[in-house]
Amino acid sequence: MNKTTRARLVKWLEHAYAMEKEAETMLAVQVTRLKNYHVLSQRMQEHVGETRQQADAIAGCLQRHNAARPAMMGALASAMAAIHATENAVMSDEVIKALVMSYAFEHMEIAVYTSVILAARQAGDNETAVVCGAILEQERAMADWLGEHLEPTVHQFLEHEQSGDAAKR
Amino acid sequence: MNKTTRARLVKWLEHAYAMEKEAETMLAVQVTRLKNYHVLSQRMQEHVGETRQQADAIAGCLQRHNAARPAMMGALASAMAAIHATENAVMSDEVIKALVMSYAFEHMEIAVYTSVILAARQAGDNETAVVCGAILEQERAMADWLGEHLEPTVHQFLEHEQSGDAAKR
Repeated sequence: MNKTTRARLVKWLEHAYAMEKEAETMLAVQVTRLKNYHVLSQRMQEHVGETRQQADAIAGCLQRHNAARPAMMGALASAMAAIHATENAVMSDEVIKALVMSYAFEHMEIAVYTSVILAARQAGDNETAVVCGAILEQERAMADWLGEHLEPTVHQFLEHEQSGDAAKR
Repeated sequence: MNKTTRARLVKWLEHAYAMEKEAETMLAVQVTRLKNYHVLSQRMQEHVGETRQQADAIAGCLQRHNAARPAMMGALASAMAAIHATENAVMSDEVIKALVMSYAFEHMEIAVYTSVILAARQAGDNETAVVCGAILEQERAMADWLGEHLEPTVHQFLEHEQSGDAAKR
């Protein structure tokens, strides 16, 4: 295995790990706050579980390269994610902000795993390519789900807000 | 036009305007830095022009509601965008970071315009719905383009890096 290729793969795996920890924190805060959007909060709760497993799977890939979980990066990312989620919480359209952010975040994850898979293949690390391929499918499924539920959720929010019902979350 | 409905539409239009100003700053910095990825930088340059026109179109919608361009919000967002672009610049995989961020950003825009269009329809503001519908098509086209060029660009980056050529931007 080429040294440059391996270093690149490890760097991108560390980045993927930090990203999953950020996703976990962000989703977990959002899920506990949503009160009137059951379909959305249920799917997000499911994805919190998936996200935890994904972080562990990436940690396993790092371990096979004798690289540790990037603890600091993860902690920092988690703090940032909590801040973002809290910022959203003070907004009157919290559920929509959460939806928009999650939709963008899932596509960031899709782009990151597409990159990691190519780096793993170039490094000849087939196991990482397979692991990240499975994660990519989960991210695509979540992105598609959010895309399909965007219009109905916004519609529900606008209806609630107009009629004076609890709309924000 | 219902007062709540109109206030919501104006708020989301202000958010959309700030988002476009952020996109413009981010893209403009990225375009001037990319040296070895001509296809990508050309498409981004094109999208800088589209983004400017989109911001003006949104400002026109705000004006019809007697609302001003959110100057402060825009300035703050621009500063943030410049910082993000500069952060990317110190990374050895600047082009990939730019690509991943742009892909996520386009999907944020898709979600935001989907919301604005529904709010405009509910407020009976057909002109804003049409304007934002046209912008949504441009954002979808850019998102699709980036999605299609993700693998080839990552491949090119990895090849350059492995052979010691200028890969980062």
